[in-house]
Amino acid sequence: MIRTIAWQNNEIHMIDQRFLPHDVRYLICATHHDVIDAINSLAIRGAPAIGIAAAMGIALGMISLPPQATPQEIQKSFHELCRLFISSRPTARNLFWAAERMQERFRLLCPENDQAVNLSAVQKALIQEAQTILDEDISQNRRIGHWGAALIQDGDNILTHCNAGSLATGGYGTALGVIRAAVEAGKKIHVFVDETRPVLQGARLTAWELMEENIPATLITDNMAGYLMSRGKIDKVIVGADRIAGNGDTANKIGTYTLAVLCREHRLPFYVAAPISTFDRHTKEGKDIPIEERDPQEVTAWQHCSIAPHGIKVFNPAFDVTPNRYISGIITEKGIARPPFDVSLGNMCAG
Amino acid sequence: MIRTIAWQNNEIHMIDQRFLPHDVRYLICATHHDVIDAINSLAIRGAPAIGIAAAMGIALGMISLPPQATPQEIQKSFHELCRLFISSRPTARNLFWAAERMQERFRLLCPENDQAVNLSAVQKALIQEAQTILDEDISQNRRIGHWGAALIQDGDNILTHCNAGSLATGGYGTALGVIRAAVEAGKKIHVFVDETRPVLQGARLTAWELMEENIPATLITDNMAGYLMSRGKIDKVIVGADRIAGNGDTANKIGTYTLAVLCREHRLPFYVAAPISTFDRHTKEGKDIPIEERDPQEVTAWQHCSIAPHGIKVFNPAFDVTPNRYISGIITEKGIARPPFDVSLGNMCAG
Repeated sequence: MIRTIAWQNNEIHMIDQRFLPHDVRYLICATHHDVIDAINSLAIRGAPAIGIAAAMGIALGMISLPPQATPQEIQKSFHELCRLFISSRPTARNLFWAAERMQERFRLLCPENDQAVNLSAVQKALIQEAQTILDEDISQNRRIGHWGAALIQDGDNILTHCNAGSLATGGYGTALGVIRAAVEAGKKIHVFVDETRPVLQGARLTAWELMEENIPATLITDNMAGYLMSRGKIDKVIVGADRIAGNGDTANKIGTYTLAVLCREHRLPFYVAAPISTFDRHTKEGKDIPIEERDPQEVTAWQHCSIAPHGIKVFNPAFDVTPNRYISGIITEKGIARPPFDVSLGNMCAG
Repeated sequence: MIRTIAWQNNEIHMIDQRFLPHDVRYLICATHHDVIDAINSLAIRGAPAIGIAAAMGIALGMISLPPQATPQEIQKSFHELCRLFISSRPTARNLFWAAERMQERFRLLCPENDQAVNLSAVQKALIQEAQTILDEDISQNRRIGHWGAALIQDGDNILTHCNAGSLATGGYGTALGVIRAAVEAGKKIHVFVDETRPVLQGARLTAWELMEENIPATLITDNMAGYLMSRGKIDKVIVGADRIAGNGDTANKIGTYTLAVLCREHRLPFYVAAPISTFDRHTKEGKDIPIEERDPQEVTAWQHCSIAPHGIKVFNPAFDVTPNRYISGIITEKGIARPPFDVSLGNMCAG
């Protein structure tokens, strides 16, 4: 299995996804600044993966504290680290969720105003918590795969968008986890891969993951999905998620909403696969989810190739929101939530 | 006005669109083989433009005949030239229409079995016919603009796909002709430009044309249109056409159908702008229009940058078909055809 990210000898090793598919290069983060840079530059991306990176990054920041740090300094450093990671990207829920998990663990070890903090124990506990988040993510993905595989029929042509695979998670993947599990269960399937402009996570990452596992796949540009559906070549769509609001409205990579509309028009099922940690019960509806806008250069150039006239204005939202009414089911580690999602997801979170 | 293509001193001069937007470079075609290459390689593209190129290419082929050519040799050469151009690309109706116009002119001058052909007169007539096709195309585009501008409101945000501008025609453009005419009429509008993968005609050509004319424009990737519509940022969509079937079903650049579906979902008007020469009364329905599939490399690489794993399977249809029920109106040089299109377009063709 591809290991997207790992804690090794007090450093964080991660696949540098900017060099895929042609180079499998590892980025070694020795400081939490390196991790922030990796998240900002998309060296690591995908909601669950950046959640794990943030948790590990917070732990990495904490182990750089000098042994003589006072309880006040420890408190201050920890909360500054959390703020830094929380503000690194705005849309993915898992990032905030991971920081909250770290904060909870920290609070138990270091109640405010506590004058007797064992820094070494705190550091160990935070490293352990980050590693637990990673391990749990992988096992949750396998559960998602287990539940989701039941939705896949032998012979299915499945379309996926962006990369919701091993590289977007601790390993195995959410949408690609469902595909992997279906293949492991012996189902013969074929995957259409949207290239996913502007950053091409489909062409560069999903196509690569599927080839590595010999899962039959065909690459298309994003604007071909509708034509394929009109010709009856696609049976269902499965995507990941960056944040799921309380009512099931789902933020995911730009272009996801268009696929959902196309599915409705062609009466095809549209599934979202994501761990419960992507669910944000404090955000009531999709319209409340902040949508990140990124550098226009992502649209106007590819590596050193400029593909648009200099000075052209660009709009570059990284995500869109798919209203709950377009979603056939949300596949989580606890099962498949069906509409109405406020009830079904609410029960899963409570349960 | 940008001159896409011109006949000069028994050569064809055309903007080499492969080098846009960064280089305005002219390609000089001295033989009909050069013209075929230009059409195949997309140095010139756009249904009306390749129609004109084919007409000029046939004339260019005919002037290379030696003065002593026999009537049989003249007949044979002409029909071979027509076959060559007709088979250069399969979808655009204008290509076949232009060849048919040239054949009609030729038939009047050189009835079969005629033993007294004046080659020089035939050559002059064919050059003249090709130039007439070019001139008529430009004046038809201005008429399309005239009718279409009435559909544009002051303040409109218009989305267009691919390039249906000067570069896709003899000049002025079909969809961009409507936009130009609206601006000339004093309307303040803003254009969203789909980049149009894989060949990026929107990013490279349409964005360039609009910047050249100072028409406010914003570039997006193809998968962003749905999100913009969901946020109420787009008022209408106007596209060109490569072939319109008898019932109004329209083949156009891949991704057009998806935009039409999105328009229906958001209750937005979806217009096609095209000259009558794009209309194919012999093709009853969209499903009968042949859809060209092009080189996978268009998808897997941009210039020297490979963007997908080696060996990945690719599906690369250049066009899709939008069924007539999604189309609000077809703007032609004779006015705006409304559903049912078999009747309205039928009347226009007859009239």
